[in-house]
Amino acid sequence: MDATRLRELIEEIAAGRCSTEAALERLRTLPFADLGFAHVDHHRALRTGFPEVVLGEWKTAEQIIAIIRELAKGGVNLLATRLDAEKGGEVIAACGGEYDRTSRTFVLKQREIENVGRGTIAVVSAGTSDLPVAEEAAISATMMGNEIVRIYDVGVAGIHRLMNHRATIDGAEVVIVCAGMEGALASVVGGLVARPVIAVPTSVGYGASFGGVAALLAMLNSCASNVSVVNIDNGFGAASVASLINRKRGEAP
Amino acid sequence: MDATRLRELIEEIAAGRCSTEAALERLRTLPFADLGFAHVDHHRALRTGFPEVVLGEWKTAEQIIAIIRELAKGGVNLLATRLDAEKGGEVIAACGGEYDRTSRTFVLKQREIENVGRGTIAVVSAGTSDLPVAEEAAISATMMGNEIVRIYDVGVAGIHRLMNHRATIDGAEVVIVCAGMEGALASVVGGLVARPVIAVPTSVGYGASFGGVAALLAMLNSCASNVSVVNIDNGFGAASVASLINRKRGEAP
Amino acid sequence: MDATRLRELIEEIAAGRCSTEAALERLRTLPFADLGFAHVDHHRALRTGFPEVVLGEWKTAEQIIAIIRELAKGGVNLLATRLDAEKGGEVIAACGGEYDRTSRTFVLKQREIENVGRGTIAVVSAGTSDLPVAEEAAISATMMGNEIVRIYDVGVAGIHRLMNHRATIDGAEVVIVCAGMEGALASVVGGLVARPVIAVPTSVGYGASFGGVAALLAMLNSCASNVSVVNIDNGFGAASVASLINRKRGEAP
Amino acid sequence: MDATRLRELIEEIAAGRCSTEAALERLRTLPFADLGFAHVDHHRALRTGFPEVVLGEWKTAEQIIAIIRELAKGGVNLLATRLDAEKGGEVIAACGGEYDRTSRTFVLKQREIENVGRGTIAVVSAGTSDLPVAEEAAISATMMGNEIVRIYDVGVAGIHRLMNHRATIDGAEVVIVCAGMEGALASVVGGLVARPVIAVPTSVGYGASFGGVAALLAMLNSCASNVSVVNIDNGFGAASVASLINRKRGEAP
Amino acid sequence: MDATRLRELIEEIAAGRCSTEAALERLRTLPFADLGFAHVDHHRALRTGFPEVVLGEWKTAEQIIAIIRELAKGGVNLLATRLDAEKGGEVIAACGGEYDRTSRTFVLKQREIENVGRGTIAVVSAGTSDLPVAEEAAISATMMGNEIVRIYDVGVAGIHRLMNHRATIDGAEVVIVCAGMEGALASVVGGLVARPVIAVPTSVGYGASFGGVAALLAMLNSCASNVSVVNIDNGFGAASVASLINRKRGEAP
Amino acid sequence: MDATRLRELIEEIAAGRCSTEAALERLRTLPFADLGFAHVDHHRALRTGFPEVVLGEWKTAEQIIAIIRELAKGGVNLLATRLDAEKGGEVIAACGGEYDRTSRTFVLKQREIENVGRGTIAVVSAGTSDLPVAEEAAISATMMGNEIVRIYDVGVAGIHRLMNHRATIDGAEVVIVCAGMEGALASVVGGLVARPVIAVPTSVGYGASFGGVAALLAMLNSCASNVSVVNIDNGFGAASVASLINRKRGEAP
Amino acid sequence: MDATRLRELIEEIAAGRCSTEAALERLRTLPFADLGFAHVDHHRALRTGFPEVVLGEWKTAEQIIAIIRELAKGGVNLLATRLDAEKGGEVIAACGGEYDRTSRTFVLKQREIENVGRGTIAVVSAGTSDLPVAEEAAISATMMGNEIVRIYDVGVAGIHRLMNHRATIDGAEVVIVCAGMEGALASVVGGLVARPVIAVPTSVGYGASFGGVAALLAMLNSCASNVSVVNIDNGFGAASVASLINRKRGEAP
Amino acid sequence: MDATRLRELIEEIAAGRCSTEAALERLRTLPFADLGFAHVDHHRALRTGFPEVVLGEWKTAEQIIAIIRELAKGGVNLLATRLDAEKGGEVIAACGGEYDRTSRTFVLKQREIENVGRGTIAVVSAGTSDLPVAEEAAISATMMGNEIVRIYDVGVAGIHRLMNHRATIDGAEVVIVCAGMEGALASVVGGLVARPVIAVPTSVGYGASFGGVAALLAMLNSCASNVSVVNIDNGFGAASVASLINRKRGEAP
Repeated sequence: MDATRLRELIEEIAAGRCSTEAALERLRTLPFADLGFAHVDHHRALRTGFPEVVLGEWKTAEQIIAIIRELAKGGVNLLATRLDAEKGGEVIAACGGEYDRTSRTFVLKQREIENVGRGTIAVVSAGTSDLPVAEEAAISATMMGNEIVRIYDVGVAGIHRLMNHRATIDGAEVVIVCAGMEGALASVVGGLVARPVIAVPTSVGYGASFGGVAALLAMLNSCASNVSVVNIDNGFGAASVASLINRKRGEAP
Repeated sequence: MDATRLRELIEEIAAGRCSTEAALERLRTLPFADLGFAHVDHHRALRTGFPEVVLGEWKTAEQIIAIIRELAKGGVNLLATRLDAEKGGEVIAACGGEYDRTSRTFVLKQREIENVGRGTIAVVSAGTSDLPVAEEAAISATMMGNEIVRIYDVGVAGIHRLMNHRATIDGAEVVIVCAGMEGALASVVGGLVARPVIAVPTSVGYGASFGGVAALLAMLNSCASNVSVVNIDNGFGAASVASLINRKRGEAP
Repeated sequence: MDATRLRELIEEIAAGRCSTEAALERLRTLPFADLGFAHVDHHRALRTGFPEVVLGEWKTAEQIIAIIRELAKGGVNLLATRLDAEKGGEVIAACGGEYDRTSRTFVLKQREIENVGRGTIAVVSAGTSDLPVAEEAAISATMMGNEIVRIYDVGVAGIHRLMNHRATIDGAEVVIVCAGMEGALASVVGGLVARPVIAVPTSVGYGASFGGVAALLAMLNSCASNVSVVNIDNGFGAASVASLINRKRGEAP
Repeated sequence: MDATRLRELIEEIAAGRCSTEAALERLRTLPFADLGFAHVDHHRALRTGFPEVVLGEWKTAEQIIAIIRELAKGGVNLLATRLDAEKGGEVIAACGGEYDRTSRTFVLKQREIENVGRGTIAVVSAGTSDLPVAEEAAISATMMGNEIVRIYDVGVAGIHRLMNHRATIDGAEVVIVCAGMEGALASVVGGLVARPVIAVPTSVGYGASFGGVAALLAMLNSCASNVSVVNIDNGFGAASVASLINRKRGEAP
Repeated sequence: MDATRLRELIEEIAAGRCSTEAALERLRTLPFADLGFAHVDHHRALRTGFPEVVLGEWKTAEQIIAIIRELAKGGVNLLATRLDAEKGGEVIAACGGEYDRTSRTFVLKQREIENVGRGTIAVVSAGTSDLPVAEEAAISATMMGNEIVRIYDVGVAGIHRLMNHRATIDGAEVVIVCAGMEGALASVVGGLVARPVIAVPTSVGYGASFGGVAALLAMLNSCASNVSVVNIDNGFGAASVASLINRKRGEAP
Repeated sequence: MDATRLRELIEEIAAGRCSTEAALERLRTLPFADLGFAHVDHHRALRTGFPEVVLGEWKTAEQIIAIIRELAKGGVNLLATRLDAEKGGEVIAACGGEYDRTSRTFVLKQREIENVGRGTIAVVSAGTSDLPVAEEAAISATMMGNEIVRIYDVGVAGIHRLMNHRATIDGAEVVIVCAGMEGALASVVGGLVARPVIAVPTSVGYGASFGGVAALLAMLNSCASNVSVVNIDNGFGAASVASLINRKRGEAP
Repeated sequence: MDATRLRELIEEIAAGRCSTEAALERLRTLPFADLGFAHVDHHRALRTGFPEVVLGEWKTAEQIIAIIRELAKGGVNLLATRLDAEKGGEVIAACGGEYDRTSRTFVLKQREIENVGRGTIAVVSAGTSDLPVAEEAAISATMMGNEIVRIYDVGVAGIHRLMNHRATIDGAEVVIVCAGMEGALASVVGGLVARPVIAVPTSVGYGASFGGVAALLAMLNSCASNVSVVNIDNGFGAASVASLINRKRGEAP
Repeated sequence: MDATRLRELIEEIAAGRCSTEAALERLRTLPFADLGFAHVDHHRALRTGFPEVVLGEWKTAEQIIAIIRELAKGGVNLLATRLDAEKGGEVIAACGGEYDRTSRTFVLKQREIENVGRGTIAVVSAGTSDLPVAEEAAISATMMGNEIVRIYDVGVAGIHRLMNHRATIDGAEVVIVCAGMEGALASVVGGLVARPVIAVPTSVGYGASFGGVAALLAMLNSCASNVSVVNIDNGFGAASVASLINRKRGEAP
């Protein structure tokens, strides 16, 4: 996947060994890889300062450790998500770093995290059962160089608790709302503040919650027009979107 | 289905023409109908003061008019629900009474409606599109002898509007909440007041609202434990449940 | 979250150090918390006599024990729901009280339960498999200060068993019906009695019962108009709604 | 698709022009049609006395008329189902016979319908809205040579009406139950009688009835073990199954 | 629930201590139980010869053993369904009888099973994975006094295997077809024979089979009009329906 | 809903006619409305420069015209969405302004639209059938003060067309992607650019697209972590979210 | 989107005005379009002989006519699908060609269709109601240069009709099976022949067919391992896949 | 199930002991089995060179070993799919051969695998989590006599990786695409190459992926018309279809 063939072609053109038409033809039919590296570099450049991320869910502890060791060589910061406690224990035993049981995340900080955001990201959650998802979002966004404000346990059944935090939430650049059961919190927060709201339905609930579907549908049908939605329990995805929104432009995402 | 056979049997027993054992045997094997009228009477008694109700949805205008004429003979009040404007027009042309376009209801008041409730029923709705369902509930509950307080257009995207009515809602005996889209209003109202809340999901919405399913699921998964739910757009059902809750005991439902 | 700032403001106004307009402005922009305590107090007042409730499902035994110990300090009665047998054992070992395996509830009675109801709550269940949900409802409602009548194992496949209890059910203020599989019992009971019926679909069944969805849909589509529905297996929610309906007004919920 | 090739082969064998092995080989590779007529004949034989049936739903009036004219040549009785009123009018104008608006069926009786049943088929329906499906079942079963008992409008919200007919239903060979909304009637009838019950969910209902799905699921999950189910609104299918059950063996189906 | 009150009333009437009108009134308001025993007796009578049945799924081994011991006192035959191997082992250790691992059924034969059927019941299954359901049907139907013909592993992907058994299947009074995956076997068998077909979708499959839903829908939509359907994996239900169809009338079911 | 009562209270305090404690008490129990205006004002302030929006879907032409006339008095810009051609015609006849058939939007520009964005919003669509939704998004976002770049008809079945626009898309502040059928475009765009992507599933498709559900699910499950999703066909919602993201902070949304 | 910039670059290199490194850099950052045309050409080349296709479903008659006129200039053959009769009439009035009501297709043959297949494509359908889909497939495949064998009305309820055609079907290169309702035909055909089977579920059916979902699920769960599936009613898609399978390699698709 | 009866009949005809008419009659009523063997032979012949396949999912290790031993006697190659690691270990301990943990397949090669394909089959997968399904497809297709090209981890979130392999994929006879989550890869590959694409949705994902349903729907709705779909996780089925497409005609499948 390197650019050898392309370089050779350029040299042939320069040497006059290849006519314009032939060069044109050969360039057009070169496998994408020879040119495509620009994309790769560009992408990598865009991600400067961003942690490397490992999705732990369908990998064995051995696989995760191997990947972390490989990635860690670059001296970058590392984030692994969706690690159960057993895998988490094996990973910190092998690689150091920190494992957080609530969010099921592993982080390895090898360098200072640079704050690349214009403001804060508010992470709001409905109940204590939504904490794992809210914390996955908060820790992920922290690792991506954002300042986080946590506002937890402000579900709509006790709306006054939420009201007390209206100013804080409205002061954030972007708001992440994590809620299960009926997922109403996203609409209420969306109605209270003039900021983009990333709603994360959680799988908290039983019976007709259908593993988060009730909350997902509620959030998609929000009467507040500043709400967009990510997948059920996808705290990491919400952090990624929020981080891109918060990021000072010119900065890598 | 009359009680003739039963009367004959009693007379035979009284006349000594039928032994205890034979009477016992014959009573046990009598068709239910001969005894069952008690139930019918009892039911009818329970409903004193209640309007007769005609569900108009799957009936033709002719059928509805015929039923109304028959029922009206008793001098009772009459309620017909789910009549489209065309049927409604034909019915009032034939039977008099009033037709309401918003709620698609027809009412024929032949006697004073007696207030049989302990307090008021609050009917709360999220948006103007939920009005048809809210009004079906309000008009139905009125016809059942309840005093109604209407609090409309207080959806969660502007929570302060709802807050202004908290005391009124809390002062009702029972609250009916009509909301479509994400249906979050039921949870918010449920959290605000210490009254039973009957939630009515409406089919207002599009896309992933699936004709009211999103609101229905939200309401079933309410984090407020004082919420119970009726079918999508079932304003009449909500009125019936609320009316029974509000009714002074001893009164017929 | 206390009222200090508000008090200071009032004192400034009284002292003439703050004009009417300025006071108006500052009042309007005070964080909600400073005013909102009224709501909290009000809510707490409303709940006098009601047990404190802990939802055990997504908490560890340690968390539940800690919460119970904290709440128990007030001398109130305590109810914990959805505790499996293992958690239940740990909780009673640590806190005393009683654990009930069938309903998976824990109760700690520190004071006499005051009867705050106008009448009885009938808890009706279809089959023996529905007992855990029915008992969660019955025990919860008992803890909320209601007198309970239990009528179990009266499913519609043997309708005569149900018929024998018609008078008892009709004598209750409100009826809770727990049924899985086809959930038909709610409609039949609803047709028999002139009381509000709270239907609880249970997850009892297999195949096309879809974990209680068949019963849920049946109950939502009940041809009896006095039926409202709570979430699948939500015995506690049914008890809460029924308790509010049964409660003598003026009493806290 | 005639048996010519087979006859020729037999004659060749008989004439000694074809060895056993060659005959075996040729028989095995003959197209199925040449042998398959037995099946066709057998099927036709089995159907003696049965009406020819035309499903009208996705056919134009012209197509239906053409098919009816062709089939009518044999002097048999004819049944067409799922004809809307417009098609029905065109068909009787062209072919004579009778069209029934309620059941949307057309029948052409060219010969006496022979009673081929051991007993009666009871057709039971919950509400007046279920009549079209119940009548499709009743008329279809009549055309198939069965004696029908109609028991209509006995839904579970007024269980005593049903009770009055228990003996009649139990006296039938087989029972067809048509019900929409929550579909509870099938379970209640199944529990009352010791006969096979064919349940037909109807699309009567709204909101969470999902066009008959609620009733369908209820019927599939019936706690009565003598209930089997056909497709939503499939009155004709129920009649076919019931007719086969009722039929005196030895008789064609 | 006994008839004491009724007997007393009859005696009062006979003694002239109760007028006809008063008797009529008191009879009408007697609780159903006092009269209802007739139904119970009648039902029990209908079931003569039928085994007692215990559904083992949601019961503990101890509960099942206790029920079996109680029921066994009457000397009747006993069938328990949906017992896993562990429960099965405990039950036969305690009660004797036989446990079958494939069908997960337990049977205790205390008397000769009387053949009460007009003909045979054919049990047809698609693949070896459908055997548990097919055997639950076959063993249940055997215990109900029917002669069974088993035709297994004749799925539609090798249609010639099925064809070889056409005559046998057609010779049965009624056919039970068990199939998972696409459930096509029910339609093919329905098209081949002129008998009532009871289709049992099985949960065999993966992915888009959704635990038997694909097969269930296929069977409900069968283009063969002699097919009716029971719940997913409901071999016992199919046996019950088939047994009632096969039963010589006059016989108890 | 005015602040009269609050003003009176302040004046009483200032006049010494109300003690601190009494003032505190009265403030706490004032209806929310008296204080809540702050919220309303604040919200209105936040929306400066934003058009007034009318959702036309469930309103009659008369209702829409009345609302537009009322809102237009303020001299603001106006946007109405989801107007079919007939309503659109009536509205421009009555109110002037412009109606766009493709997007089914009406706009009335009474003042210059001020560009309040940091950069551009790219609106990307898969096929020509997605145009109505894409244009609803583009026109809405334009009215909200954003510069729009339209990149249409770049579905994944011809990926090179999309590739040609990579730089343009990457240069936007935020990207709206509208796609029906399999909705893959959101993931592909999300993978190509380092910007927040708002995905709008459209109802374009047939069969197993289920009115946009296939695209919705695809977008929620995007393997690109910079994608969040709004409701099916919700171009306006996407514009609102994108506009808030693009908006220079300090500006009203 | 032309190659001008690329040509200029090559000429600069050839002229020695651009170093290898600079050339490499500039090539890497050229917009994809300048190189991407190769793909377009390649694709177009691959499609030689293939008709141009217009999907008529969401286009107006005017739009379709405009597109057809534009495409027709090249002298190619044209296929338009999913045109209702009204649009079809307008199109042939404006453009000539042929419109087929059953399949709702329009074809304009401007040159001889070259047979590019290795063998035949068999199009098999279950019932007459599946004809529109089957004919869409057959006509589309014909236009793509394939020889078609039609085998219609061979549904599984009369399996012998299908058997008669086994040899013909097995002789095809690839088989398209169109079936609605329970969709069993795909499995049966798949089991009979050793050819790839493309299954097309049709929306024919009612009730629990859910617009073709029952057939779709049946086909996805086929026990025959040579079956793959396209979307509901997607006759054109089936034709495209089948055509690619049948095509002599080296030929354009 | 042998042909004895048929042979006897032929001999009787040849001997003149059976008239033409009688022979015709007896042939028509012979059970299918006597003729049906041709089908069996034909099928077996068609499968020459194909491995015998055992589906391990619902079988015990003992059952699998017994089947393998029986089948292995014929000296053929053997493939077993869906064996978990434990079963796999037991099988190779008992039977030799190789077990692959990733694909959960067992293979026993007793003879050289003959290449029966016209070209290669490309197996393309989106992410490393899709490997088990991709490898099940690749190993199955290898055992069926095909040459495989594996292109893994080319998901659409990094489209340039896929682009690099375009030529390779286009060079294959047929392409298998395995992808979970949003399943977009099938559409992108379908748009890039002019080959038939068999799409395999995988159950990789969480939340709203619903166990592969999101990917399945995306693939069924592909805007690329050369895509057909098999069941979720059905790598073996994809291999079977692809193998039939790739196979040189005249060869057994």
